Amino acid sequence: MKTILIIGAGRSSSTMIKYLLEHSKQENWKIRVGDMDLALAEKKIAGHPNGQAFQFNALDPEERKKEIAAADFVISMLPAALHIEVAKDCIALKKDVVTPSYISSAMKELDTDAKKAGIIILNEIGVDPGIDHLSGMKIIDEIHSKGGTVTAFESYCGGLVAPESDNNPWGYKFTWNPRNVVLAGQGGAAQFIREGSLKYIPYHQLFKRIETIAISGHGEFEGYANRDSLSYRSVYGLENIPTMLRGTLRKKGYCGAWNAFVQLGCTDDSYTMQGSSKMTWREYINSFLDFHPTWTVEEKFCHYLNIGENSDLYKKIKWLGIFEKESIGIEKDASPAQILQKKLEEKWVLSPSDKDMIVMVHRFIYTLNGKKHELHSSMVYKGTDDTYTAMSDTVGLPVAICTRMILNGLIKDKGVLLPIAKSIYEPVLKELETLGIKFEEKQIS
Amino acid sequence: MKTILIIGAGRSSSTMIKYLLEHSKQENWKIRVGDMDLALAEKKIAGHPNGQAFQFNALDPEERKKEIAAADFVISMLPAALHIEVAKDCIALKKDVVTPSYISSAMKELDTDAKKAGIIILNEIGVDPGIDHLSGMKIIDEIHSKGGTVTAFESYCGGLVAPESDNNPWGYKFTWNPRNVVLAGQGGAAQFIREGSLKYIPYHQLFKRIETIAISGHGEFEGYANRDSLSYRSVYGLENIPTMLRGTLRKKGYCGAWNAFVQLGCTDDSYTMQGSSKMTWREYINSFLDFHPTWTVEEKFCHYLNIGENSDLYKKIKWLGIFEKESIGIEKDASPAQILQKKLEEKWVLSPSDKDMIVMVHRFIYTLNGKKHELHSSMVYKGTDDTYTAMSDTVGLPVAICTRMILNGLIKDKGVLLPIAKSIYEPVLKELETLGIKFEEKQIS
Repeated sequence: MKTILIIGAGRSSSTMIKYLLEHSKQENWKIRVGDMDLALAEKKIAGHPNGQAFQFNALDPEERKKEIAAADFVISMLPAALHIEVAKDCIALKKDVVTPSYISSAMKELDTDAKKAGIIILNEIGVDPGIDHLSGMKIIDEIHSKGGTVTAFESYCGGLVAPESDNNPWGYKFTWNPRNVVLAGQGGAAQFIREGSLKYIPYHQLFKRIETIAISGHGEFEGYANRDSLSYRSVYGLENIPTMLRGTLRKKGYCGAWNAFVQLGCTDDSYTMQGSSKMTWREYINSFLDFHPTWTVEEKFCHYLNIGENSDLYKKIKWLGIFEKESIGIEKDASPAQILQKKLEEKWVLSPSDKDMIVMVHRFIYTLNGKKHELHSSMVYKGTDDTYTAMSDTVGLPVAICTRMILNGLIKDKGVLLPIAKSIYEPVLKELETLGIKFEEKQIS
Repeated sequence: MKTILIIGAGRSSSTMIKYLLEHSKQENWKIRVGDMDLALAEKKIAGHPNGQAFQFNALDPEERKKEIAAADFVISMLPAALHIEVAKDCIALKKDVVTPSYISSAMKELDTDAKKAGIIILNEIGVDPGIDHLSGMKIIDEIHSKGGTVTAFESYCGGLVAPESDNNPWGYKFTWNPRNVVLAGQGGAAQFIREGSLKYIPYHQLFKRIETIAISGHGEFEGYANRDSLSYRSVYGLENIPTMLRGTLRKKGYCGAWNAFVQLGCTDDSYTMQGSSKMTWREYINSFLDFHPTWTVEEKFCHYLNIGENSDLYKKIKWLGIFEKESIGIEKDASPAQILQKKLEEKWVLSPSDKDMIVMVHRFIYTLNGKKHELHSSMVYKGTDDTYTAMSDTVGLPVAICTRMILNGLIKDKGVLLPIAKSIYEPVLKELETLGIKFEEKQIS
């Protein structure tokens, strides 16, 4: 019997734990789920005989090493910054490990040590990053195998609300870490390449410089650029590609309204607002607006952003209740971003019966036998409820499938890996398709 | 004979060294000037019999301690972040020390130790901070002594070019650290209070939300908010003042054009532009602009900023040569801000015969015997040439005057000090007036 240690039982772990438990009898697995919050881990195990929930502090090196030593395989669902310590322990204790998060440079540096230890550290095997790599590499390899050359690759993904559950003006509800949504795009300019020119978009322009992305049968979306599109050129073997852009999708109108918060400075997490523990929402918004002796906060807001009180943008903001004379209710003084997050967590709630939706789209331009072609590939996938969300399914299933493959010896490479080899993407995409996560390809020209 | 150790012989030290050398015979001083660049230190000493220039690495603790131990008094003209180590040595070796820079929180924490050691660590005694404190506190104390209450204090200062040397479209040339000019306003929102409301301006709005400041006889200027106006409320004894704002002055039109660089992302110092060592200026600007299949870089620039090619703003940008197909010429890949700085250093040069100009203005509103009053106080001071600049005079003379006062036992307080006591501001302002640095007060109402 093999023991799989899952570190972290949060939102994104639900489906992955369910899949592993469902396969545990046939595969002869014991599934140990550790989380700071024991109740959360117990809920995900749901009394399954092959599952064990336990309280776990992954920041405690002794506790962590003990658990990893006792396991045959490790899945780290911790916040991205914490994977590195788990990975180091896994090298020392010679255990394979999988994480859905972006690979960090510190993680990359472990490659030699991981190879020496004979282990796999597989990263970026969620949805984005993850399914985007699998489905993108499949098409890139197909084009290359025919002798074609990819000249443009634009890839967008968004975690959205399904149309049937879309009952708020933003077309958005939280399906993953709210803090990441509030801070999205911060920490450096967005970098990509277009027609051979490197392009940089500073944070405060990010939600203005958006692309409209239409997906047939699903309408139009907005896409804003991810921070780093450049490093994936070498990952995908497209070093000299003239156009490469990765971005995030939102429903139409979201980016313009979010930009209002960016322009005001409400998403700033770098300082604490003095006296904010005693402020109302109205005072919070007012502190970002120019002084005016007679205008209301609403009038100053509309003037500052040059919008009308009948605009959709203004209606989105007003719906949040951010102009109300009601106490913010955070005990300690907080940053503008922390305060905004509190309001959004009150309003952007996924109800128990709500369905979320993951949308991913790739647009390729390539030349083949001297002719230019365009190919689109898209995936639209809806969740079941507020636990087994599309987010949880699309993040967790690739992790779970790869876990099974590695435990069954089907991944031969060792070291710090990304899921870009045919030996990985082919079986994973195939199984995802049986689970309802599938791409539709459309040859445009 | 007393030895004064001056650490740093850069632009801001010229006048201070000259003053101290001129007084050295009468006061029986030896003036030791240490700098990484021995030639620079020698130039400032100019062969004066009481002066000694030497090569000095202030980052070497041994070297630093040896020099401080051998001195009776220390003047630190290092970059702001480096004062703290000098101050610690001065406490250990019981030497008084003066710096013109903003007091850091680390510096504040040395107060008890400095008092125990019986020494003075006098900070913020340049022009801004420095002369603003002296001249501001004088008026605040006068209002308070009459029983008045200050309800608004707005204070602006700028290091500009004198009208007779103002021959570029920006009305600006460098008179101090160019890097500080390029990064001005970064690192957090500008914070101030207006009519009782705390106000926050994010960096990317800073050069849009400007005030027009008119000084009679000198025309109109633009003022943008400094990062921290709030902490000076307690320093000035104005804890409950409803309006307090400190800002920086520029010639009319500067902020709008500078904002173009901020909006594009050219002032970003947080990342390195890949391949920028091989780029032209035109490619540099193009990398911040939206792709367009047929528009020129100039057309994209004007479209992005919504300006015309005949606008003054566009003329300022074009004059810099930033659209030229000429190599940037920085050997290593650099950040957007480093690259912009190189261009500005080529173009915003103070010629040997150029005169710079410091402009400072305070606007007070106060109530006295139930009536509201307004008082303006302003100082406009021109430099001599590109060495004895207004910047060098106004930064260096308050430092030098306080040095003389401390060495003559005229400042009785010990510890980490700001120049806000009458016993400091009164004699310093009086002597500055004899040297041509004087304020004009205007009772508006």
